[in-house]
Amino acid sequence: MENFEFHNPTKILFGKGQISNLKKEITAYGKRILLVYGGGSIKKIGLYDKVIRELEEIDAYIVELGGVEPNPRLTTVNKGINLIRDHQLDFILAVGGGSVLDCAKAIAAGVPYHGDLWDIVTNKAKAPSNSVPIGTIITIAGTGSEMNGNSVITNWETKTKAFFNSNHVLPRFSILDPELTLSVPREQTIYGSVDIMAHVFEQYFHASSNAPLQERIGEAILRSVIETAPKLVEDLNNYKYREIMLLNGTLALNGLTGMGVNPDWSTHLIEHAVSAVHDIPHGGGIAIIAPHWMEHVAAVRPEKVAQLGVRVFDLDPTGKTDAQLASEAIQCLREFWASIGAPTKLSQYGIDDKEIELMTERAMLADRIGNYVPLTHKDVKKILRNSL
Amino acid sequence: MENFEFHNPTKILFGKGQISNLKKEITAYGKRILLVYGGGSIKKIGLYDKVIRELEEIDAYIVELGGVEPNPRLTTVNKGINLIRDHQLDFILAVGGGSVLDCAKAIAAGVPYHGDLWDIVTNKAKAPSNSVPIGTIITIAGTGSEMNGNSVITNWETKTKAFFNSNHVLPRFSILDPELTLSVPREQTIYGSVDIMAHVFEQYFHASSNAPLQERIGEAILRSVIETAPKLVEDLNNYKYREIMLLNGTLALNGLTGMGVNPDWSTHLIEHAVSAVHDIPHGGGIAIIAPHWMEHVAAVRPEKVAQLGVRVFDLDPTGKTDAQLASEAIQCLREFWASIGAPTKLSQYGIDDKEIELMTERAMLADRIGNYVPLTHKDVKKILRNSL
Repeated sequence: MENFEFHNPTKILFGKGQISNLKKEITAYGKRILLVYGGGSIKKIGLYDKVIRELEEIDAYIVELGGVEPNPRLTTVNKGINLIRDHQLDFILAVGGGSVLDCAKAIAAGVPYHGDLWDIVTNKAKAPSNSVPIGTIITIAGTGSEMNGNSVITNWETKTKAFFNSNHVLPRFSILDPELTLSVPREQTIYGSVDIMAHVFEQYFHASSNAPLQERIGEAILRSVIETAPKLVEDLNNYKYREIMLLNGTLALNGLTGMGVNPDWSTHLIEHAVSAVHDIPHGGGIAIIAPHWMEHVAAVRPEKVAQLGVRVFDLDPTGKTDAQLASEAIQCLREFWASIGAPTKLSQYGIDDKEIELMTERAMLADRIGNYVPLTHKDVKKILRNSL
Repeated sequence: MENFEFHNPTKILFGKGQISNLKKEITAYGKRILLVYGGGSIKKIGLYDKVIRELEEIDAYIVELGGVEPNPRLTTVNKGINLIRDHQLDFILAVGGGSVLDCAKAIAAGVPYHGDLWDIVTNKAKAPSNSVPIGTIITIAGTGSEMNGNSVITNWETKTKAFFNSNHVLPRFSILDPELTLSVPREQTIYGSVDIMAHVFEQYFHASSNAPLQERIGEAILRSVIETAPKLVEDLNNYKYREIMLLNGTLALNGLTGMGVNPDWSTHLIEHAVSAVHDIPHGGGIAIIAPHWMEHVAAVRPEKVAQLGVRVFDLDPTGKTDAQLASEAIQCLREFWASIGAPTKLSQYGIDDKEIELMTERAMLADRIGNYVPLTHKDVKKILRNSL
């Protein structure tokens, strides 16, 4: 293992009706609130009204920032920063999916920062320690944004997607009510399941040694998704499946499986490049790219992919090489994702080879990306080409 | 799952040399420090001197409470409370194993409390929110006390052991340096391994439904212990095994596997009764009692014990009933603990049937104890008798 610090003080309130604790939690931070949400699904499910009622009971002053995009944009973040400054707000309540939460985090960091926010998003500057406190009500399982300090933001003008991580933007509390995820459509449910598994992969394929517990916990999350997702996509209104999937998503990216390891993250970098150029759903892009990335990895270092096959997909290792097991494991992963209805080719989103060079460039934040098997420009281009 | 809150803000600093961060961490809380430690092993390994040097560099005012017992006593806790009040100290630094940390937590809660501390330990009163802040340097893997709000205290006069849990006594930071555990003797290393597994069992055998992720994470920890402990007891000075075991211990009891489930804890209640009457090592008592407890459980509800056998001990379920699998699983557990040198009978500690009634009474905090299979007075007595 590498030396590490783990400090995740986000308070999780999990279960049916936890919104009744919103007032109590929020009053610890202030009553002048920026309410951040997305395209309006929270209005459809009645959550918006519930939140407003709760906030009115504590006489909160509410300013709204609605319409946050699925790949949240820098322009929207800047709008939020200005709203907080103009109205002298002291708390951000983010209600929605990962994009809404990511947007809220960038706003939180940007308010006390006097330079260009993009510097924080691209890690040229650090998020200030006096970032505006955030609370969240998550409405979709997947990103884990409810219990981490990650924020992914798109600069649509330059077609660049970047992300930062800071403990200063960790939510102070997050309300996780599986009921709020019951109406998530089939497609987004699939994307969420894929994203959860990909978050595990990014940390499972790490460049460190001696981390068997972290790997086994990763395998535990993967098995839990594999067991539940197929039942969930056939029965979207099932509370029990939703609650398992919500917890899967939170624990897949709250720092737990990343303790003491140097994670990979190249699949996410490649997907971010694709969705910055083409604005496709993140989970969809991941489902397409990850197996091709894993094939590249298996050709160089098959042993961990083989381990995944044996421990997660129950492959029988008798008489097989790591390369054989890895190949079978990738086949299992492809079949699993296909079985729940995930996309398999970028062409399904109308993406052809025209912008492969641009996407490759956008992915290459350095000469090599990723840590388990560092990828060159040529490697990334090949993975993208195979994904078309 | 049950609705739950999870809030664990303890900052973990894990790895070689993390003590160099002690100064930075501690100055956030104050420089008038109660230094709590045990029987002197921290002096043997040079840790005491290191800690003092670090504290001297920040001109700390240090008052010492050494000699905390392996089953820490109420009298010692009260001594610590008086030291803090008399010297107006503002921070507790606990350096040692779980007992030292547990003692520190009870002191922390007792200082601002104006009633009888035993009320807090026995859950008649709550730990105050202004409990004295604690930092820890852990020197043995096992109890998980470094990342939870649990404290087990013995009232030696009444031969009663009790425990409380409060977020207000969670360590603010915990330094986990596996090097500090290298000199833990074989016997305590075995006890620690047993205790870690038992912490998983207490939460794995829960009275809730629909918690597959929590169970799989529990299984991940169990497998990690089973894989590492036998190598560690044969190679006590091995850093890599020590670091795995240290993390196993922390994650086995930091709230993770207990999310949303109603845990059992009857094995611990029974062991606490035994060690309150006979002052034997906790891990040793657990190793003796747990298999007999599990036999009782398997006779009533064999399915989860069977699941343990299949998923953790790789039993082949083909053609077997849950009862058969459960019986084989218990046999595997016995063999595993025997293989690492854990005790198997209370008579090995010179305990005979004379005080069985007293121990049973001490264990019965209510008419029934435990949640997975609630135990009556008669059940506990039988389990104890079988453990002799």
